[in-house]
Amino acid sequence: MKSHTVTVIQPNQKRQSLVAFPGQNLLSLFTEHGLVLPSPCGGKGICGKCKVKILGQTRTIPAEYRLACQVRVSGDLAVELPDAEEKARIMMDSDHTVSLDPLITERLITLPAPTVGDQTSDVERVEQALGLPGCINPELFPALPAILRTSGYTLSAVLSGDEVLTLQTVHQDQLAASEQHLYGVALDLGTTTMVGYLLDLTTGQQLSTYAALNPQRLHGADVISRVDYTVEHENGLTELSQLVRAEINKMIAYFSRHDPTLPQSIYQMAIVGNTIMLHLLAGLEVENIAVAPFIPVVTRDFECKAAEVGIKINPQGRITILPMISGFVGADTVAAILASNLAEQAETSLLLDIGTNGEIAIGNQERILTCSAAAGPAFEGTNIRAGMGGIAGAINQVWINAELNYTTIGDQAARGICGSGVVSLTAQLLKAGLMESSGRLKSPDELGDDFPLKLKQRLCQFDGKSALLVAAQAEGATEDLYFTQQDIRETQLAKAAIAAGVRILLKEMGITAAEVKTLYLAGGFGNYIDPHEAVQIGLLPKELEERVVPIGNGAGTGAKMVLLSRKCLQKSRQIQAKTTYLELSTRSDFQTLFVDSLEFR
Amino acid sequence: MKSHTVTVIQPNQKRQSLVAFPGQNLLSLFTEHGLVLPSPCGGKGICGKCKVKILGQTRTIPAEYRLACQVRVSGDLAVELPDAEEKARIMMDSDHTVSLDPLITERLITLPAPTVGDQTSDVERVEQALGLPGCINPELFPALPAILRTSGYTLSAVLSGDEVLTLQTVHQDQLAASEQHLYGVALDLGTTTMVGYLLDLTTGQQLSTYAALNPQRLHGADVISRVDYTVEHENGLTELSQLVRAEINKMIAYFSRHDPTLPQSIYQMAIVGNTIMLHLLAGLEVENIAVAPFIPVVTRDFECKAAEVGIKINPQGRITILPMISGFVGADTVAAILASNLAEQAETSLLLDIGTNGEIAIGNQERILTCSAAAGPAFEGTNIRAGMGGIAGAINQVWINAELNYTTIGDQAARGICGSGVVSLTAQLLKAGLMESSGRLKSPDELGDDFPLKLKQRLCQFDGKSALLVAAQAEGATEDLYFTQQDIRETQLAKAAIAAGVRILLKEMGITAAEVKTLYLAGGFGNYIDPHEAVQIGLLPKELEERVVPIGNGAGTGAKMVLLSRKCLQKSRQIQAKTTYLELSTRSDFQTLFVDSLEFR
Repeated sequence: MKSHTVTVIQPNQKRQSLVAFPGQNLLSLFTEHGLVLPSPCGGKGICGKCKVKILGQTRTIPAEYRLACQVRVSGDLAVELPDAEEKARIMMDSDHTVSLDPLITERLITLPAPTVGDQTSDVERVEQALGLPGCINPELFPALPAILRTSGYTLSAVLSGDEVLTLQTVHQDQLAASEQHLYGVALDLGTTTMVGYLLDLTTGQQLSTYAALNPQRLHGADVISRVDYTVEHENGLTELSQLVRAEINKMIAYFSRHDPTLPQSIYQMAIVGNTIMLHLLAGLEVENIAVAPFIPVVTRDFECKAAEVGIKINPQGRITILPMISGFVGADTVAAILASNLAEQAETSLLLDIGTNGEIAIGNQERILTCSAAAGPAFEGTNIRAGMGGIAGAINQVWINAELNYTTIGDQAARGICGSGVVSLTAQLLKAGLMESSGRLKSPDELGDDFPLKLKQRLCQFDGKSALLVAAQAEGATEDLYFTQQDIRETQLAKAAIAAGVRILLKEMGITAAEVKTLYLAGGFGNYIDPHEAVQIGLLPKELEERVVPIGNGAGTGAKMVLLSRKCLQKSRQIQAKTTYLELSTRSDFQTLFVDSLEFR
Repeated sequence: MKSHTVTVIQPNQKRQSLVAFPGQNLLSLFTEHGLVLPSPCGGKGICGKCKVKILGQTRTIPAEYRLACQVRVSGDLAVELPDAEEKARIMMDSDHTVSLDPLITERLITLPAPTVGDQTSDVERVEQALGLPGCINPELFPALPAILRTSGYTLSAVLSGDEVLTLQTVHQDQLAASEQHLYGVALDLGTTTMVGYLLDLTTGQQLSTYAALNPQRLHGADVISRVDYTVEHENGLTELSQLVRAEINKMIAYFSRHDPTLPQSIYQMAIVGNTIMLHLLAGLEVENIAVAPFIPVVTRDFECKAAEVGIKINPQGRITILPMISGFVGADTVAAILASNLAEQAETSLLLDIGTNGEIAIGNQERILTCSAAAGPAFEGTNIRAGMGGIAGAINQVWINAELNYTTIGDQAARGICGSGVVSLTAQLLKAGLMESSGRLKSPDELGDDFPLKLKQRLCQFDGKSALLVAAQAEGATEDLYFTQQDIRETQLAKAAIAAGVRILLKEMGITAAEVKTLYLAGGFGNYIDPHEAVQIGLLPKELEERVVPIGNGAGTGAKMVLLSRKCLQKSRQIQAKTTYLELSTRSDFQTLFVDSLEFR
């Protein structure tokens, strides 16, 4: 088989030549050779983190910058990678850094051997050396005598804070080598997708990512139908728990595919997600969250032993569930707030995480208010006829001038429209005059004679209702993609819910939009959205157009920060403590603002 | 069947009339009617705690005071019991009291029901009411929603310190009644016997006792043969653990024989014993204790969950192992020091707990020194031809004048000689001139003509060696009981080891015997021994004859104190911390003092 050479250029590093087989994915080629690029989306072309500079390829590629995960090697190639240092800052995505101080640490200790004059017991001998009386759990006592005596009193202790998780023999020849590596996994457990990150806790480096669909979706697409499933099926809760735990174990198996001993060295998982997903994971009932007064079993952070919940990392490893706010504002929002640094600033900022629900937070170092606006899944692509998630082939931006043009994620043939595409499309329809501010699509007759014909021709009837042909199969799309009047209504409801939520929070905080310092946008949607267009359709306040800071997967970043820094776990608790949840469903002012926000602009 | 009437008279109480069947044991009659007398020895006639005043019986009984456990009802009878208040002070046997402040407590809480305006989670709602954030273990989360909602938000929390062990529904009608009772079990786990006490942790009252032989004795009478058993048999350690755990479960079953739900209400066991017994109980290897440098796996106190070690109290209940000092000075000694109050006093005192080993402690509130003198089991009755434990039928005191007289425990026919009997016999032989101070028994020829004939006749040859007939079958003993030259040698070795240990400790403490404030004697042996005779044979220093304070089962008392008072657990840790163990086996000055102490006086 013919092979290609990929020359890798990195700042301050020697050139490397890698051998690739034809058609090999560039990201996986790099990963195989230990060149780990950040890829939180798991190589799905979503997160944009694996961007590299292509310097030359036999077959000409127009774009100079490409996502490595979307490139298949079809000839010799030179690639410039970003600075390795820069890669290490992946978890500090937002505008602040985290100093490495993980809860999980290893201590190598060599003890004086006991004598008749020093009859200190095995347990206390180790505890004294660690300077932590009482740090060894009785479960570990039985194995200790042999560990001490086979190693000549040199051993390794892995600790979670001040508590010993494992004690292991260390042989003198190993002692010379540097300490072993300890690993942690951060997991953002979403209703639809889950994204996991393998981190080296001794260096802080991210080593691998894993993205998968939440297998529970077979029993309901949204949180409420999952709750129903647990109520309607006798073992429903157990079933849903086991499904997600099994998927987590698949992730661990994936992380350890090159090294079957790796799971033994994974000592912590930090998990975020919405409150219902975290309850289902922990095997806690969710039915009281679904009905008023919407009470979760727990919202504070808690820790289980991996063995107790059947997660196949080190059996003594800890599963840390981050703090949640309420039944409908979860640990993902707390983690995003943590990642945004909003809670550390004197000035007040807003944070928006738009998914099925729009979780919104406003606040500063003093206090935070949150709410969950039942936005519906329009911005996730669901509920929209041609909607899809933000993956390769999704239309993510639209331009309407004399003709309608668009881009897709990964430059692939258009397969559907993702959330940022919906925002862009709506804004462009409005700007071009194809749609009234009420949301009504105009008919070709209503448009003036000098209106571009190509646009007029896109207006049509679909299933008896007005619609717009966004992409035609004839022009390269995988099928004809329509954006219907019904889709516009869904979009309208979603954006009104979010806009009203923002207005309620501003009101409760007693400030105006102009006084908001930053608008943090979490999630892939936040990365792709055009703030100007979001303002144009009234999704975001006009005053904040220039103050938008996308923070990527804030939830995942927050989970990683907690893995890497015990201070961040502390901060996540402080965030929970200073956050007040506002229940919108029972507020009449929310209904009024919601109706008021339905119009585009 | 004919029955008898037992009239019970108690200070400040109404007279009670109990119906007894002929031959019924008086102690068990009382227990059946809820009149619980202290009986740490389990009705074996050893501890002397169930003493009552017999006011009249059809069949005349010479002694007015009798041990209830030794009385069989054979006619109508009036009995005066000690003050109930006095009974409650059983656990404060020594000269100080313990205020009730157990680690295990119950809190009844009624919570405000959640509302849309107060969406606090179930877990945090309870933790806030208890004022203890984080006090509920995730294991308890799954059951909590139902507990809260079936009880109308009223529930009972049983805590161990600041940690919730169980949460239970409380119905409004139960709420009116007083709080439920919580129970604890104190256990003194000896090599030969184990004695357990059931305590009501809400009142401090002792409700029942249980004494049994340690079933491990089938695999070795002393600690070293138990150690050998674990080394020589592949599953020896597991076997020995399971044997003693099964016996503990028999004790729990005995305590709950009238109320099968009782074990659910037992939330703590405080266990003391020698270091090897506690290791075997916990399933920890003991082989390193048996060989130099004699290293135990652990000596600090530790706690296991009952379910984890298979002890059938409440599964969430805690098994607390009290702190130990070294491989040969165990938690029983720490508990006895605690019971004696030695560690709280400015002046220096001695404590002696004589069993197979003589554990000796000297100290004050500043520091404590301990050692273990390998005394051999002479004072436990083993190794002595006619020896036996201090139970009914044992000769416990001897007088030699013109003839030899003795008393037995429980006034029963003599079956053997117990430890205090051995001390008494040796002292009397010496005083009467039947034995030289070297320990040699004289022959009848060496005694003058005017020496009482009846005594001379008791001297004989037994198995070709000199011996003394202590009790003859013809005179009412169950068989002829001899005290041989060999028995005297064993006694000599035992008392020399203890006397030398005491001298070493005095020397290390830098004081003389005259400067010792009190000599606490722990154990049944300490209760029965005549201090004057112990001084005469050189077992105890002459200066301390008038300063002997018997503290009964100090180990059991200390364990009970820990159950009743968290301050006492703290004190037991302080005792461990300020105690230094002296290894006698390697000291040449011990050998010298030992030889020097062999002579009787």
